[in-house]
Amino acid sequence: MTADAPALRKIVIVGVGLIGASFALAQRAAGQTATIVGVGRGRANLDDALNASVIDRAVLLESDWAAETADADLVLLAAPVAQFTGLLVAMAGRLGAHTIVTDAGSTKQDVVAAARAHLGAALPRFVPGHPIAGTEHTGAKAGFAALFQGRNVVLTPLPETVPTAVERVAELWRACGAQVRELDPAVHDRIFAAVSHLPHVLAFALVEALAMRPDAEDIFRYAASGFRDFTRIAAGSPEMWRDIALANRAALLAELTAYRAQLDRVAAMIEAGDVGALEAVLARASAARRAWGARHAAPTSVPADGPRESQT
Amino acid sequence: MTADAPALRKIVIVGVGLIGASFALAQRAAGQTATIVGVGRGRANLDDALNASVIDRAVLLESDWAAETADADLVLLAAPVAQFTGLLVAMAGRLGAHTIVTDAGSTKQDVVAAARAHLGAALPRFVPGHPIAGTEHTGAKAGFAALFQGRNVVLTPLPETVPTAVERVAELWRACGAQVRELDPAVHDRIFAAVSHLPHVLAFALVEALAMRPDAEDIFRYAASGFRDFTRIAAGSPEMWRDIALANRAALLAELTAYRAQLDRVAAMIEAGDVGALEAVLARASAARRAWGARHAAPTSVPADGPRESQT
Repeated sequence: MTADAPALRKIVIVGVGLIGASFALAQRAAGQTATIVGVGRGRANLDDALNASVIDRAVLLESDWAAETADADLVLLAAPVAQFTGLLVAMAGRLGAHTIVTDAGSTKQDVVAAARAHLGAALPRFVPGHPIAGTEHTGAKAGFAALFQGRNVVLTPLPETVPTAVERVAELWRACGAQVRELDPAVHDRIFAAVSHLPHVLAFALVEALAMRPDAEDIFRYAASGFRDFTRIAAGSPEMWRDIALANRAALLAELTAYRAQLDRVAAMIEAGDVGALEAVLARASAARRAWGARHAAPTSVPADGPRESQT
Repeated sequence: MTADAPALRKIVIVGVGLIGASFALAQRAAGQTATIVGVGRGRANLDDALNASVIDRAVLLESDWAAETADADLVLLAAPVAQFTGLLVAMAGRLGAHTIVTDAGSTKQDVVAAARAHLGAALPRFVPGHPIAGTEHTGAKAGFAALFQGRNVVLTPLPETVPTAVERVAELWRACGAQVRELDPAVHDRIFAAVSHLPHVLAFALVEALAMRPDAEDIFRYAASGFRDFTRIAAGSPEMWRDIALANRAALLAELTAYRAQLDRVAAMIEAGDVGALEAVLARASAARRAWGARHAAPTSVPADGPRESQT
């Protein structure tokens, strides 16, 4: 936090899963003194969060949780994106005059549209965000303070967003160890369709197709570490990835169409035995992947046997 | 080795790359006392192998290397599969009367066909093999004795293959720490088209398509660990994967066709907003991948920062 920003007194985190819990733990590790209120669907997960001192108080979503936002300095929406409209509707008119709202959704155009439709006068204090971090584990117990260390957090402020609100949210993420970048929501959705949502769909589609084959057992017996890494993201949450795929439908379908055309090209090279063209494709891919790997070192903040990051 | 099998006196390894060098090191670690002769294209790599005591003697492929096979107990072909025909032609008629020949090629029907065409009277002593191990690193210096620990090695003997030759080769791989399985060559090629060759083509195709886009720099900046794992195999050798794709062309094209149909199905679900169908696909994939991961623990024989296995 900047020296002259007043200290936060109350943070409300809606959805105390991996991201929400890790944000809370990272804030506390950075010296955050605000009361942290966790809002959630299930008693058991909230109890886990209380027992681990992730949150100070727990409120069930079925109660009048939105009353908690009236005196909150910050509300972080870290629930599944499909629930956002209901959350925004419940908060609208209840938010304090200075309460800043942000989110951790993996898609941004749909979140911006929902905020624009429902937040009313509070819209200028809404800062859409997307922390590029995660693991394949879920729930408050999966949270850890180092999750965002060295990761990107993308903010996609609107033309009407108050700059001080953006800066406040950015400071909070920097305190978690993250690097904050800003993008237009449409550019965000296009980029993540390409580098995250498409690969997830490709991996899920491959594993499902193999699993449904009569010889699935033989096939999986011989799968090794290339398969392990390629398909790791297919172990992710079906609910979450269903929501992301549908929320970012237009950009994802454009990527799928382009990718299928690329597969057609490569299949034609293999079919024609076009050694030169095929090797050129593979060589460009190999060079690009090696260059990327050299510039982006693997995360080191997580122990080797601990949770692995899974970009959303 | 079984107690009654005579000790080997001489092993010739053609191609002292990652696999050939690791086989030699694993044999020595298991107490192998045979002289190990390395045959290769390049002086520098052979010198590396000599300096690291991977091999006892080095012979250039451009010399009369096949003379070395006359008194060899075992010849391991660990060169790129595209070179096998030339190697088999050179060996035919030079092999000792009891010399066993095996290979480490990633495809088996093409290797079997080449052996059948060129090995003549030595064919019954040819044991086609495929160690399911590797890393993205190449060359003798990348070799390490533990590479095959806990890995599968698939042997695809022919109807005429002498059982004692199969058993001898199996014992050698077991001494390297591997688990030996037998498959029909066509079944082998179909299985590995599905679990290895297809995923490699998918990863190479994705990275190349992204790298050729005008916004490649932006896209790669936001790629995170999901992308890292999904595309790691795209950093592999273009030459090797070109050869594998073409050597296993029929099976790979069948897999590509099936996969493109699967992508069409999934894209149609996303386009139609078919929440239930999409979640069902993702849930089946996630369950299958989690079950597979639980049954197949990640390799532990390699240090966390060391070479990562890359199935071929």
